[in-house]
Amino acid sequence: MTSLESRFAALWGSLAPVGRTDEGGYLRYSWTGADLECRDWFTEEALDRDLTVETTATATCGPPGSLPALIRAPRPSSPGRTSTRCRTAAATTARSAWSRRCSPWTRCGARGVTPARPVKIAVFTEEEGSRFGLACLGSRLATGAVDPAVALKLTDRDGVTLADAMTVAGLDPHDVGPDPARVAGIEAFVELHVEQGRWLADTPHAVGLASAIWPHGRWRLDFTGEGNHAGTTRMADRHDPMLTFAYTVLAANKEARLSGGHATIGRVEAAPNATNAIPARVSGWLDARAADDATLAKLVESVSIKAAERADRDGTGVSVTVESVSAETVFTSELLDRLRSVRPDAPVLPTGAGHDAGVLSGHVPTAMLFVRNPTGISHAPAESATDADCAAGVVALADVLTELAC
Amino acid sequence: MTSLESRFAALWGSLAPVGRTDEGGYLRYSWTGADLECRDWFTEEALDRDLTVETTATATCGPPGSLPALIRAPRPSSPGRTSTRCRTAAATTARSAWSRRCSPWTRCGARGVTPARPVKIAVFTEEEGSRFGLACLGSRLATGAVDPAVALKLTDRDGVTLADAMTVAGLDPHDVGPDPARVAGIEAFVELHVEQGRWLADTPHAVGLASAIWPHGRWRLDFTGEGNHAGTTRMADRHDPMLTFAYTVLAANKEARLSGGHATIGRVEAAPNATNAIPARVSGWLDARAADDATLAKLVESVSIKAAERADRDGTGVSVTVESVSAETVFTSELLDRLRSVRPDAPVLPTGAGHDAGVLSGHVPTAMLFVRNPTGISHAPAESATDADCAAGVVALADVLTELAC
Repeated sequence: MTSLESRFAALWGSLAPVGRTDEGGYLRYSWTGADLECRDWFTEEALDRDLTVETTATATCGPPGSLPALIRAPRPSSPGRTSTRCRTAAATTARSAWSRRCSPWTRCGARGVTPARPVKIAVFTEEEGSRFGLACLGSRLATGAVDPAVALKLTDRDGVTLADAMTVAGLDPHDVGPDPARVAGIEAFVELHVEQGRWLADTPHAVGLASAIWPHGRWRLDFTGEGNHAGTTRMADRHDPMLTFAYTVLAANKEARLSGGHATIGRVEAAPNATNAIPARVSGWLDARAADDATLAKLVESVSIKAAERADRDGTGVSVTVESVSAETVFTSELLDRLRSVRPDAPVLPTGAGHDAGVLSGHVPTAMLFVRNPTGISHAPAESATDADCAAGVVALADVLTELAC
Repeated sequence: MTSLESRFAALWGSLAPVGRTDEGGYLRYSWTGADLECRDWFTEEALDRDLTVETTATATCGPPGSLPALIRAPRPSSPGRTSTRCRTAAATTARSAWSRRCSPWTRCGARGVTPARPVKIAVFTEEEGSRFGLACLGSRLATGAVDPAVALKLTDRDGVTLADAMTVAGLDPHDVGPDPARVAGIEAFVELHVEQGRWLADTPHAVGLASAIWPHGRWRLDFTGEGNHAGTTRMADRHDPMLTFAYTVLAANKEARLSGGHATIGRVEAAPNATNAIPARVSGWLDARAADDATLAKLVESVSIKAAERADRDGTGVSVTVESVSAETVFTSELLDRLRSVRPDAPVLPTGAGHDAGVLSGHVPTAMLFVRNPTGISHAPAESATDADCAAGVVALADVLTELAC
């Protein structure tokens, strides 16, 4: 084990117990106790390395100076097993290749290299949207992609607003908002992430490079029918929106397979949602993603047509409302080329997941590294990566930063 | 309009405004203000006719005496339009054929007949289970079909217990419980109800007689799969329980049509129920009813088999848990014959809905009269019956009581 890998293992071990659940996953919802413990851990590790810590909508460390490169270390809050401990510890370790116990910023660190520009580690809040429902909240706020007034009114499942959650955690919600000067000062942004699918799983490669983030979006499907008594209404007289919903779930699955994209209806609400009542309304949320914008549009259109056809048969109604659509993110080819020069063998693959890197890519040259995930599962306790693969990710990130910063 | 019909119209009109909603229905949840207003109305109308009012788990009026016949006047609380005002006013009017302004119990009333036995009007609480989730709560308590200790812990959607709701309304929850002496003293029980289907709608008959209540039950279907990221999990790698659920919804509909029974999945819960997550679990509740016990058992078995077959294909799991089953209720043929002698042309039909009459039928000879419902809808604002049909129901009830009580 190299010095870098052993330091990574130690950092990883110290972060591992925070927010651990009985199921073997992690719950670190933003601004809860576990999240604040992670923030304290980050601050202590940074100060121990004589790094400066700033806290805004994002947390960064490193001395001010010329154009900084940001290494992303997100703060996961859904029950993934690997990503939490891997990513934050990885970014801190990779950063330590230059800076550990060295101040001011001089030739030092494990690799004995002198960065020509400052390297910062950014910890963005709420990338997964697990508590307040809006993915990439921190990076969206920093880049102005979401109105702070709207964001502060977001509520969690207990009805607590973002503003209240920040206040309880001792933070000032008025500090939230776009930070164009800080964003403009970033020369390049690199995000290391466990892969959330199985593109790498069947390859001999521990690390991959991102080519693009699939376009994706969320559509709300509202099915309306005739609420009635489940016991007495003849089958032939029914206008049951649950049937239209059910058919649409199966149609979305089929159309996604035909298109090569992904379609999921994982959220459903029925009204009155009573055992002895034919529902008056069923709403389902369609999450759809595809390799390009045209394929995605066609996929959603196909599902909408199938839903409307079935609604005609059921005597029900269906309306489709766009809740959000993100166009395809193609990562800068110049930056990708520099990463490929460092890791020429690494597969280059797209991802169907949204990332802070995707939000920042509209403002900053951005790249992503993926670590192999044998299960392909993420945001669930079965998320997994071997220690060796995580260490390979750290080494790759350090190599990339050496290329970019020196 | 006869004297009986005009008195019915006046009673109906005085009850109509209570608990009226903007949608044109009624909400009179047990022990809320609207419900207490109904109780006061009932008491005033009874006292105005020199009737005695007793309040227990049921409310009855009429002088003590020999074996009483009970006329049921339930207190609906779901948003039906007709049933509320029709049923309570109807029972009070029919009763007034003998007793209005006459006391003691002598030959009197609109028809000038002398009942040979007392006639009581019972107003049972919470037949629809709209507030506390257990249908026929009042009659179940009176007959001992539910443990009072269990009933008092039932909660409404705001978490208020039955015990607390009664206390707030000024009632003593310790009074709740079986009343075997009172039940044993009933010679016959007749329930007048708006039809909750469309058996009568396409006939020239305003009033029908009940032959039986279909056997019915509730089964919880738990579908388990592999929670995962909606954006990154390849379609081929998924184990999505929402697909198995959706297929089962459609299969239940098909199997019900094949069997001539009814099957509804109107309640669903998904976990984590997030737009960007393949669910780890989906639960659906199957409400199934059929003409006889064997057909019902076969229907539920068919749905269970279809669900299991699809689960095999989806790589998911399914388990089926019985929550409640009520066997077929066949109303006493002797009592039905007496009703048929009064209304020889009235169609005799089964119902798929549960009723207080079904609960009491295990203890007392019981019969039901139905009033035609053009929409077939019930427990919703579109529930409907014409004034003429309601009046016909009142007259039929009065005729039946004349037959039974004189």
